[in-house]
Amino acid sequence: MIHFDCDYMAGAHPEVMQALVESNMALTPGYGADKYTHKAQELIRSAVGCPEAQVMFLVGGTQTNATIIDGILRHHEGVLAAESGHIAVHESGAIEASGHKVLTLPHYDGKVRAEDVEEYITNFYADDTYQHMVAPGLLYISHPTEYGTIYSLKELKALSDVCHSHDIPLYIDGARLGYALAAENTDVTLKDIARYADAFYIGGTKVGTLFGEAVVVTNPSLLKHLFSLVKQHGALLAKGRLLGVQFGALFRDGLYERIGSHAVCLAMRIKEAFSKAGYRVVVDSPTNQQFFHLPNTLIDALKHEVSFEYWGARGAESSTVRFVTSWSTTDSDVERLCELIEELHR
Amino acid sequence: MIHFDCDYMAGAHPEVMQALVESNMALTPGYGADKYTHKAQELIRSAVGCPEAQVMFLVGGTQTNATIIDGILRHHEGVLAAESGHIAVHESGAIEASGHKVLTLPHYDGKVRAEDVEEYITNFYADDTYQHMVAPGLLYISHPTEYGTIYSLKELKALSDVCHSHDIPLYIDGARLGYALAAENTDVTLKDIARYADAFYIGGTKVGTLFGEAVVVTNPSLLKHLFSLVKQHGALLAKGRLLGVQFGALFRDGLYERIGSHAVCLAMRIKEAFSKAGYRVVVDSPTNQQFFHLPNTLIDALKHEVSFEYWGARGAESSTVRFVTSWSTTDSDVERLCELIEELHR
Amino acid sequence: MIHFDCDYMAGAHPEVMQALVESNMALTPGYGADKYTHKAQELIRSAVGCPEAQVMFLVGGTQTNATIIDGILRHHEGVLAAESGHIAVHESGAIEASGHKVLTLPHYDGKVRAEDVEEYITNFYADDTYQHMVAPGLLYISHPTEYGTIYSLKELKALSDVCHSHDIPLYIDGARLGYALAAENTDVTLKDIARYADAFYIGGTKVGTLFGEAVVVTNPSLLKHLFSLVKQHGALLAKGRLLGVQFGALFRDGLYERIGSHAVCLAMRIKEAFSKAGYRVVVDSPTNQQFFHLPNTLIDALKHEVSFEYWGARGAESSTVRFVTSWSTTDSDVERLCELIEELHR
Amino acid sequence: MIHFDCDYMAGAHPEVMQALVESNMALTPGYGADKYTHKAQELIRSAVGCPEAQVMFLVGGTQTNATIIDGILRHHEGVLAAESGHIAVHESGAIEASGHKVLTLPHYDGKVRAEDVEEYITNFYADDTYQHMVAPGLLYISHPTEYGTIYSLKELKALSDVCHSHDIPLYIDGARLGYALAAENTDVTLKDIARYADAFYIGGTKVGTLFGEAVVVTNPSLLKHLFSLVKQHGALLAKGRLLGVQFGALFRDGLYERIGSHAVCLAMRIKEAFSKAGYRVVVDSPTNQQFFHLPNTLIDALKHEVSFEYWGARGAESSTVRFVTSWSTTDSDVERLCELIEELHR
Repeated sequence: MIHFDCDYMAGAHPEVMQALVESNMALTPGYGADKYTHKAQELIRSAVGCPEAQVMFLVGGTQTNATIIDGILRHHEGVLAAESGHIAVHESGAIEASGHKVLTLPHYDGKVRAEDVEEYITNFYADDTYQHMVAPGLLYISHPTEYGTIYSLKELKALSDVCHSHDIPLYIDGARLGYALAAENTDVTLKDIARYADAFYIGGTKVGTLFGEAVVVTNPSLLKHLFSLVKQHGALLAKGRLLGVQFGALFRDGLYERIGSHAVCLAMRIKEAFSKAGYRVVVDSPTNQQFFHLPNTLIDALKHEVSFEYWGARGAESSTVRFVTSWSTTDSDVERLCELIEELHR
Repeated sequence: MIHFDCDYMAGAHPEVMQALVESNMALTPGYGADKYTHKAQELIRSAVGCPEAQVMFLVGGTQTNATIIDGILRHHEGVLAAESGHIAVHESGAIEASGHKVLTLPHYDGKVRAEDVEEYITNFYADDTYQHMVAPGLLYISHPTEYGTIYSLKELKALSDVCHSHDIPLYIDGARLGYALAAENTDVTLKDIARYADAFYIGGTKVGTLFGEAVVVTNPSLLKHLFSLVKQHGALLAKGRLLGVQFGALFRDGLYERIGSHAVCLAMRIKEAFSKAGYRVVVDSPTNQQFFHLPNTLIDALKHEVSFEYWGARGAESSTVRFVTSWSTTDSDVERLCELIEELHR
Repeated sequence: MIHFDCDYMAGAHPEVMQALVESNMALTPGYGADKYTHKAQELIRSAVGCPEAQVMFLVGGTQTNATIIDGILRHHEGVLAAESGHIAVHESGAIEASGHKVLTLPHYDGKVRAEDVEEYITNFYADDTYQHMVAPGLLYISHPTEYGTIYSLKELKALSDVCHSHDIPLYIDGARLGYALAAENTDVTLKDIARYADAFYIGGTKVGTLFGEAVVVTNPSLLKHLFSLVKQHGALLAKGRLLGVQFGALFRDGLYERIGSHAVCLAMRIKEAFSKAGYRVVVDSPTNQQFFHLPNTLIDALKHEVSFEYWGARGAESSTVRFVTSWSTTDSDVERLCELIEELHR
Repeated sequence: MIHFDCDYMAGAHPEVMQALVESNMALTPGYGADKYTHKAQELIRSAVGCPEAQVMFLVGGTQTNATIIDGILRHHEGVLAAESGHIAVHESGAIEASGHKVLTLPHYDGKVRAEDVEEYITNFYADDTYQHMVAPGLLYISHPTEYGTIYSLKELKALSDVCHSHDIPLYIDGARLGYALAAENTDVTLKDIARYADAFYIGGTKVGTLFGEAVVVTNPSLLKHLFSLVKQHGALLAKGRLLGVQFGALFRDGLYERIGSHAVCLAMRIKEAFSKAGYRVVVDSPTNQQFFHLPNTLIDALKHEVSFEYWGARGAESSTVRFVTSWSTTDSDVERLCELIEELHR
């Protein structure tokens, strides 16, 4: 069976695992006060081009979003997000559980538009009763989005500008950031992300580690008591060095970039194969998630050998499906899939 | 340098690490829906003697306490705990952050007494204004306690009885449970824990794993929507199988017991050494944490070679200190410490 | 100046005020344990035809909604509501502040449809990832709605049925309930409300009292610790008897009905006047709130003598406005308004 | 029957009631945007000697404490309070429900000492693990306290100084403030309260109004979004002018002072009567609450004609009881009580 279900099916990239094995018997203080963590923080500060950034490692994405968003928002504020955003849909109400409303914006293949943000904020304060409503206090975007799409540098700058013109910070969920940075025609670098966001996280779980997300706060006034906040949210790992060891491995010799390129390259081959065979690409995603409309007969035939995710019916005879690659996807997996597509298409 | 600072300084026990390495490239569904997790759940259900228990794996202790306590309590209820309890002191207000008060009871070397629980509850409902106060809705105890002490079977039964006579569940924090079960004269087994508690957790982080705590709910009506609750608390690990793999290793061939015995045995040797040299044992702990009053001169001398935790001044010339062993503590570490005690004592 | 801005501009209906004045020097115990409260509870239990209903008086609407909804929902649940619902828009995030998401449904002039509720719930549980999303745990509707519209008995029953078929309670916000019950062709009585809802409140603030809302819980298992919950939400009035005195006055001699009829009758005259003059009635509301599209020139002319609420532009030359009547609106107010409409129209 | 149970048994002081009756038919905008509220705000700003203070009216005490404390604290902070403080005991966990721990200090007849506050804060930051604990973020005191005692100017200044030296605001619960200001030998004025506190409230419910507490924020940076916060806490009264009307009446012609003096004067007569008859005064309270140890025989005898509050057994044959006066206590009530004491004592 070949798997394209999601990007968190395997353990850690072998180089990351190696680093964990090598450091396993070392004795270090807990909660991130160790040399591995310090080193990884340095590497990330350097990679993002922001020497004064606050870098903190957490275990998972929902936890990171809930902690950071709660930490930034004031009591009367909510977080703006695409109605398709992970925090708006798939986090079991974690944002609301910390007391805040998710204020939804329309999405375009998962992306939000600066003009919609501007309009939301302007309309909000134009309403005489705005104090009876939840104030927009933060903009959340994901890059890449839940649909695999990415922002251009111009779009990112526009979002950052509209936020800052209204004194609202911008936070970027980078659960799959490595795959966005590796997209073929992207003009957004990691340093751009750091320049335009006030806080963001570099996802590890889906990009090579066993688990772990690296929060980067470039606006130092935003989260002054982050350590206690992380502890209070149950997100402080006792053996914090496990996060340092893993992110150290990702950022020491360009592993993060290599993983991104590998997965995106394979995803592009899959896209091409389906496309060439005449199937419809639902979203023009340049990253590791690919969405297609396929005939149900093809889906059934593929399923004997390939697993992937079902996203919903598309009329009576076809459906939307998702194929995902990652560092653990192999050339031969993709080769076999492409063969199958060709074979079954005939 | 020899380290006795705490029991979470090393990575995972080599057998646990081996299991992680071996399963690293396997591809499994996320969020605990994998064969490793199912197997570990079975092993634990069998080890606790409760085939119908709900078993769920979380990442860390604070997270586990906050999630389970929040899940059990109703809005108007708080959790009873020793004033020295971890949830009352060292979790940055995680319980309160989920909306609940920690109602404190006096502690006796970290333990609470059934008669104090009874008195608290009785006095509470005898007060005409009780509806204006936070109702006791759960009893939290730790076994072993934060002072290394353990409950006898009789004490445990008494606590369970008083709770259930008032229709209040009993929850046991087993962050270091393995070390309590290995205590020399304990008459409390893992099955007793499962029999008397409504919910508890078997700690992994401090007893052999990289991270992870296994929640066992023996009272099935208590936490009907545990999965969503765990997700909402940001405590659901994407690669859930990492927890299954590790707990599988702990419970397959008695590793959990071996780790407990090893650490407790070494702790007893340390206790004996200090005791024989005439130093005062502060708490009569039969587990892996040992507390002593030592002269500051001895502390300073030891510190050249040994690290351990300072717990506070005891007059002008002596202090309380803590020595902790774990699976990673070696015989030679303890031997050297004992030599030093003898040497420096002369 | 004649005022049609809203229905909470005056103090209390003279009969209510009289009751407050008469009882002012009486000495009673606090927090609702007084004879006035008991009497009012009895009157309401009788009026709603549910002798075993739990009746509790709170001060205001947002407070009532937040307290009751929080009390009913379990941690992982949210509340279904029209996207125009008061809790979804105008309560400054009070529901989210208590940890719960508002799950929005499309609205039709403020109303939700049973088929949409059915579809939402069915789709929710059909999604494999439903445990990662906020479960629908309660349906909130307002009667009349924020647009003045009302449910028919058939619609109400359908909503109740769909809720109960999915084991979800139905909660009705009756901030203006008196005006719905007085609508000309309504077939919904107060007893129907009690029959089909699991909990609801009878609004006082907008229907004759200085303040106060009477919560009626007809499903006794729903809110077992209501008193403590109300106290915890800061919603317990020290001099609870003030609520009892006022609701006693409303329900003793049919005052609640008289107020409703008075206001609705005047609202119908306003509607007729605008309609006859050819202006567009935006929503066909049979209650005390009326919405019209008026030319801006007419609006400006009226404003010299009449105040009402502006609801937004309608193209370049007209706007939507709201006129509201209440117990304090007089015949002569409405007569003068009608004269003005006729005059200005010529 | 003569009542000394508590100070919220009657409605409003006749002058306050008169103001409500007179303004009843006036039509004003809601939510405090009316002339009565503005006038009352001005009167209070002037009375407290702080023209730039933010003044906001809420309905009740628990609500006020929960809203203001939540608004001031940051996520990782708790509120310091006497273990006897109202927020620590009698608010059904309202503070914890908003996510914050109440950090308790020892009390001396209800008062906290500056040196204890200093010690708490110093010890807190001296602990290496302080980031794992709830940080003290605010000091809450009540004046008078729950035991009727009051702070001297020196004590108040000391508390204010220790708070500000650690950058922690001071908040004063003035539910019964009027009775503290009227204490015979007090050297603390309303202006002193405003000078030393960052925020406080002037209680109305227990000092002449039907309900209502006037929050005064003298440190303008503390609560920038108070209106939305109040709304979110369900504490915004629709007919806000009812609070303005009542506080206007209290502060227009010295009514607040007159009420305080009246009640305190009567309380002193009660104290003297019991004292002269040889009974033990438990707390030396100079305000409207008086605590005595009385023989159970006397208690039983008094109860035929007098009601008061039982506070607990004091050995087998006597008990602690509380007598409370207020604006509604009459000279003849107290006279009759004094006669009874004398009679029964013989």
